[in-house]
Amino acid sequence: MAFIFKNVFFTMLRTHTCGELRIADRDTTVTLCGWVQKVRDVGAMVWVDLRDRYGITQLMLEEKNVSKELLALAHSLNREFVVKATGVVIERVSKNAKMPTGDIEIKVADLEILNPAKLPPFLIEDETDGGDELRMKYRYLDLRRNPVRANLELRHKVARETRNYLDSLNFIEVETPVLIKSTPEGARDFVVPSRMNPGEFYALPQSPQTFKQLLMVSGFDRYYQIVKCFRDEDLRADRQPEFTQIDCEMSFVTQEDILNTFEGLARHLFRTVKGIELPELTRMTYDHAMKYYGSDKPDIRFEMKFVEVNEETKGKGFPVFDGAELVVGICAEGTATYTRKQIDELTEWVKRPQIGAKGLVYIKLDADGSIKSSVDKFYSPEDLRAIAAKFNAKAGDMILLLCGETDKVRKQLNELRLEMGSRLGLRSKDKYAAHWVIDFPLLEYIEEEGRWFAMHHPFTSPKPDDLKYVAQGEFGKIRANAYDMVINGVEVGGGSIRIHDKTLQAKMFELLGFTDEEAKHQFGFLMEAFEYGAPPHGGLAFGFDRLCSLFGGADSIRDFIAFPKNNSGRDVMIDAPSTIDAKQKKELNIATTV
Amino acid sequence: MAFIFKNVFFTMLRTHTCGELRIADRDTTVTLCGWVQKVRDVGAMVWVDLRDRYGITQLMLEEKNVSKELLALAHSLNREFVVKATGVVIERVSKNAKMPTGDIEIKVADLEILNPAKLPPFLIEDETDGGDELRMKYRYLDLRRNPVRANLELRHKVARETRNYLDSLNFIEVETPVLIKSTPEGARDFVVPSRMNPGEFYALPQSPQTFKQLLMVSGFDRYYQIVKCFRDEDLRADRQPEFTQIDCEMSFVTQEDILNTFEGLARHLFRTVKGIELPELTRMTYDHAMKYYGSDKPDIRFEMKFVEVNEETKGKGFPVFDGAELVVGICAEGTATYTRKQIDELTEWVKRPQIGAKGLVYIKLDADGSIKSSVDKFYSPEDLRAIAAKFNAKAGDMILLLCGETDKVRKQLNELRLEMGSRLGLRSKDKYAAHWVIDFPLLEYIEEEGRWFAMHHPFTSPKPDDLKYVAQGEFGKIRANAYDMVINGVEVGGGSIRIHDKTLQAKMFELLGFTDEEAKHQFGFLMEAFEYGAPPHGGLAFGFDRLCSLFGGADSIRDFIAFPKNNSGRDVMIDAPSTIDAKQKKELNIATTV
Repeated sequence: MAFIFKNVFFTMLRTHTCGELRIADRDTTVTLCGWVQKVRDVGAMVWVDLRDRYGITQLMLEEKNVSKELLALAHSLNREFVVKATGVVIERVSKNAKMPTGDIEIKVADLEILNPAKLPPFLIEDETDGGDELRMKYRYLDLRRNPVRANLELRHKVARETRNYLDSLNFIEVETPVLIKSTPEGARDFVVPSRMNPGEFYALPQSPQTFKQLLMVSGFDRYYQIVKCFRDEDLRADRQPEFTQIDCEMSFVTQEDILNTFEGLARHLFRTVKGIELPELTRMTYDHAMKYYGSDKPDIRFEMKFVEVNEETKGKGFPVFDGAELVVGICAEGTATYTRKQIDELTEWVKRPQIGAKGLVYIKLDADGSIKSSVDKFYSPEDLRAIAAKFNAKAGDMILLLCGETDKVRKQLNELRLEMGSRLGLRSKDKYAAHWVIDFPLLEYIEEEGRWFAMHHPFTSPKPDDLKYVAQGEFGKIRANAYDMVINGVEVGGGSIRIHDKTLQAKMFELLGFTDEEAKHQFGFLMEAFEYGAPPHGGLAFGFDRLCSLFGGADSIRDFIAFPKNNSGRDVMIDAPSTIDAKQKKELNIATTV
Repeated sequence: MAFIFKNVFFTMLRTHTCGELRIADRDTTVTLCGWVQKVRDVGAMVWVDLRDRYGITQLMLEEKNVSKELLALAHSLNREFVVKATGVVIERVSKNAKMPTGDIEIKVADLEILNPAKLPPFLIEDETDGGDELRMKYRYLDLRRNPVRANLELRHKVARETRNYLDSLNFIEVETPVLIKSTPEGARDFVVPSRMNPGEFYALPQSPQTFKQLLMVSGFDRYYQIVKCFRDEDLRADRQPEFTQIDCEMSFVTQEDILNTFEGLARHLFRTVKGIELPELTRMTYDHAMKYYGSDKPDIRFEMKFVEVNEETKGKGFPVFDGAELVVGICAEGTATYTRKQIDELTEWVKRPQIGAKGLVYIKLDADGSIKSSVDKFYSPEDLRAIAAKFNAKAGDMILLLCGETDKVRKQLNELRLEMGSRLGLRSKDKYAAHWVIDFPLLEYIEEEGRWFAMHHPFTSPKPDDLKYVAQGEFGKIRANAYDMVINGVEVGGGSIRIHDKTLQAKMFELLGFTDEEAKHQFGFLMEAFEYGAPPHGGLAFGFDRLCSLFGGADSIRDFIAFPKNNSGRDVMIDAPSTIDAKQKKELNIATTV
């Protein structure tokens, strides 16, 4: 009875999909099911493009071969009707080389409308006329479009290959709980009132961090999980209240082991999903990344590194540079041809509030050997050539300089570098450059809060050599065993070697301003677990939605999520969130205060 | 650099696991990491059993070969210390055939304590002295025990093989949202207050039912997901507030296709996970199951079918039988030897409030050919033999009869049948009998609520032949295209062919007492989706936790969940749920009313 094993698509309703028939199937009688993509009706003949997930096959009905009723039925068809058609596979008179099934059509002998359809509110085509809001409201129709479906098929493949790779290295997938405990450290939690424990709440996990560490204490050795996580943050285009992580942890490892293992994962995914042999990942320290790219996630598809020219610009009477903490620039190859207007426009671009630069200085090395700048008043051609030499600039290039407070100006120049990279076509979506950023600072001081925060999370271990800074009170100098994987300027994953020593963990909580009581209330179980034999361990997590959008060459993660939420956290299709019954609230011992 | 590809366990901290060294590795210098399982210390010599997830390897230190310091360190070791040891693999003098590594030991040259450990509150052994509460509080220690870890390894394998099978049939795994909309139909929802939408709530899904149906409307054709679901119910041993389903849906199929496809999954899992070739699954209608087993999930590892004997017992002056709606019994083979005391005990057993029978009548066919019963006063030996004949009872058997209202007495006899099956050793955990129960009723009338409810869910399609009963108002007679897979008396999965017609779906909501407005408010998006070309579709869901516990031969699902909750819905390890900050509640616009 198990027909399924002969042909995976043989069912009682159809013999084939709409994507598989070829000229070799000629003269076979087949039954297809699908949606009407298009009808061409010339009265005596009707052609129907029938679509399913697997492709499109052309149906054909001729007046001379079919009954009046059947032809009338064919005339009644419209876009998106669900149809079942039986007929013989015949060779097409005019073939369509663009379609895999383009050599054949089905000479229909029987036709059944399984379900009619109203005209969709937007075109079910690769290029649609539907706006974002409309497409989200009718997401189930949007998902019929090939590019959207292809995104989710890609996602499935990335998940499968992730599992294949990790399974082959003896990682175990373990499901950790979704109803856990709220911890104020970090982003805002979503909470769930407990009916059985009045006045108490579960929280939805921002990550399975503590659970995966406990699994290491349990001796699970190698854990992973492709898992939903939740963060109640204000949303942006690439943020969703619920998102998916590839979450991993390993025992008895050093940072080197983790980097090698997950470099392996990245290369496996590129090989199996994209057919690309990714070169070995380079490594860059956080300090290096900040100094030469002004970012902890540099896009290294192109060079255009920062060059600092405080020395070269100093003491020439240009007060803006003389008074600046940092004078730094990039060399944009071949842009000496930029017109005054283009440079003005670029200057306005960096002065926008989003970037916030005070101004932009340029030095042009014209093709004819002359050198020009916006600060010719202060710098002689020799001065300018000395600066240009530091950039290894050549004729035809233009140097763009910013100055100001170190941290700020680096951020500004990072934006300018990325912009120039884009303008110069150096950031092609088909090109992939992946690398590690390592040696992140352990702590960062948040002025508004007046205290130190963990840059990664409170379980990240400091570099042993840097523990000396603790005694010296120089917390900002402590580097962590923390690392990010960056692809094309996107942080796709990050992690750390964890603290496995109870005393060090307690010290860390103290640095972060936890009282003993708070630390115990929130993480007592983890601290206690460390007393029973915790192994050295570490791990990382990949942002799965982002990884998929990167593989798909898209900027937003939304198109790689089947049913995403909008910027107000709403699912406009099902209209959630919504009000709930008074009875529900009463049972849960809660009231709304609005 | 990618050492990982040479030996998946080669890391900077260890060269091998504790499970892999054999006599062939003799004379190799190795480094192992793990937990101290046991120390045998005779002063001049110390043996240590070092444990990790992969096995146990014996370490050996001899006074004559190691420094005083090293020997002192070995003396200081205790259970569950985390240790790194380097040494040469040597052949053991006294081998241990029970251990895979039992032919060798490590002559330790270097030893490092990576982390000491307090003595665990219970033994980390296959048989532990820890009670349930203690083990749950220290779940991370409980998970170190081989049987518990093996359960989660089994779970990982079942998940992997499920994906392998479904992927091979072109199913796509699609993640559906966790933050959805509350629907009062069905069990209680867990809800999540929305900060960005004051006064509104998300609900956690009880199943992705509507989303998977929308994916069919989207043309996804074959969907699956191994997915967390949530139900705020009062808990029992085999219920958890969060649980995992294998959720599946297919388009353009009939019930027959679904049964074949998922019978295939069951057989694939038994083959790959248990090494068992499961025979083809038999099918049984709901009516048959109720009549012959008194249950919609009969355990068919053994026969002992119900036999109804109203005719044979009527009119002999026994008022209890004469007045009963149903007189029904089972034949317990070989139990005619039961003593008076045993029968009394059985009678008490069925009279307990959990079963609720009024009494128990027996008929014994003794080995010597005589026949005896507890109702000899009313029935002659010939009467009794006529009854026995209907059971095909033979010498040595005993017939057990119950009587009363049909539905109640069937339930009672189901319990007695299962009990007798257990007592007679007919329900071995190593034996597997799987089958389908089909043709469930569409609706059931709940007296307390005074209305009809969907037996499966409101999206289940009725059998077309039974639509006549709608007009006749005989709703109880309408059978559904619904089916359950039952293994060893456990419902492991169930599903239905769905309604794909908007008018029929509206009719169904009407039967269930929804006003148009309620139907639209709760399921408007689904009703609307049906207008845009919904294909015929159906599916099912397996209870993944239960499936794993079945494969593991256990009764409770709790041991197959890494971090389960107790009967009050508490995670006693992390102490969740818990109170949350006033600030959090304020941001969420909620107040607690206790």
